[in-house]
Amino acid sequence: MRIALVLYHGFTALDLIGPCEVLTRWPDAEVRFVASSRDLVTTDTGMPISPAATFDELPDPDMLLVPGASSPLPPLSDEPLVSWVRSAAGSARWVTSVCTGSGVLAAAGLLQGRRATTHWAFREGLRSMGVDVVPERVVFEDPVVTAAGVSAGIDMALDLTARLHGEATAKQIQLIIEYDPRPPFDVGSVEKADEATIEAATQRLVAAM
Amino acid sequence: MRIALVLYHGFTALDLIGPCEVLTRWPDAEVRFVASSRDLVTTDTGMPISPAATFDELPDPDMLLVPGASSPLPPLSDEPLVSWVRSAAGSARWVTSVCTGSGVLAAAGLLQGRRATTHWAFREGLRSMGVDVVPERVVFEDPVVTAAGVSAGIDMALDLTARLHGEATAKQIQLIIEYDPRPPFDVGSVEKADEATIEAATQRLVAAM
Repeated sequence: MRIALVLYHGFTALDLIGPCEVLTRWPDAEVRFVASSRDLVTTDTGMPISPAATFDELPDPDMLLVPGASSPLPPLSDEPLVSWVRSAAGSARWVTSVCTGSGVLAAAGLLQGRRATTHWAFREGLRSMGVDVVPERVVFEDPVVTAAGVSAGIDMALDLTARLHGEATAKQIQLIIEYDPRPPFDVGSVEKADEATIEAATQRLVAAM
Repeated sequence: MRIALVLYHGFTALDLIGPCEVLTRWPDAEVRFVASSRDLVTTDTGMPISPAATFDELPDPDMLLVPGASSPLPPLSDEPLVSWVRSAAGSARWVTSVCTGSGVLAAAGLLQGRRATTHWAFREGLRSMGVDVVPERVVFEDPVVTAAGVSAGIDMALDLTARLHGEATAKQIQLIIEYDPRPPFDVGSVEKADEATIEAATQRLVAAM
């Protein structure tokens, strides 16, 4: 199974690296970092990553994963990126996104009339693109799977593992990455956070743009 | 606050990227990826990352974070790495590790007589280095902070955020990375997993070495 992890300037590293730690442990996975060119791609926290292949070199992956970005939002009008996602999705078994990466899927016309999730601060933005946005952590609309913000990609990847490779394999990988989370507070979603936290977090997101 | 995220060949990306998403959002953070040279460093899943500085260029960070590796274990006899960690720890306010990165701290003589945690499969290895290994997710022994395997770095970084910048800031960052985990199974630690899962996961880890 050839899995394309999509890189573009300013993407959020954890969106991609969380699932990557799971997917690379699939029995049959060949994971590749792809971008529009072989030039270094810099994450939103300034980490430069070297792509392993260009979009042209991997036109037909079995699965693709599009990460999000926060400052600014993912490049919804980046024609090479959006075109490749649209084309690759046509033949892929699974088309996935994390965080605001769902915006790229929507720009490629892949979420019309579909339920999808995204980062909480981008829900209205995605809704304005004609998507049925739901406040869930992971949404399966085969062959499209969307995850909520940043850290949700880990849960999505484990869910997918259970579907494709069975619960036993998913449990083993969960244990290997010692995924027994202990979040210090119960404020990880807007459904749980208090108003003051939501307001201050929103201001931080806006300030970073 | 100058934070050094340590890169070496074969390190586990999520060990570093999980905390990185939190630390880069601290109000005063200057996060840099450092390595023994400026050459590309490849993670254990084959992702090439370009370091921003060499050890020589950042001799005295305020905080350092050493990630782990699984196949093989982190390079405990890599003299430039271990020497720099020992020296940098001498002046740093916080010395942290994720997963088997604790082995590098131990090799640098920083864990003698201290309580520490690590990836569950490396507990005996770390114990054999004279460390008081405890089965916890995050262990504070100021100025040393150790986290359990891979995904535990996210919890450690949020704990540190609450200590250094207060609960309000930690809550905001937790919400920004939408850290409301939904692990599909309750098997993320060896204290919770069943015997069959532990045995199969151990075989996978050994096979990957």
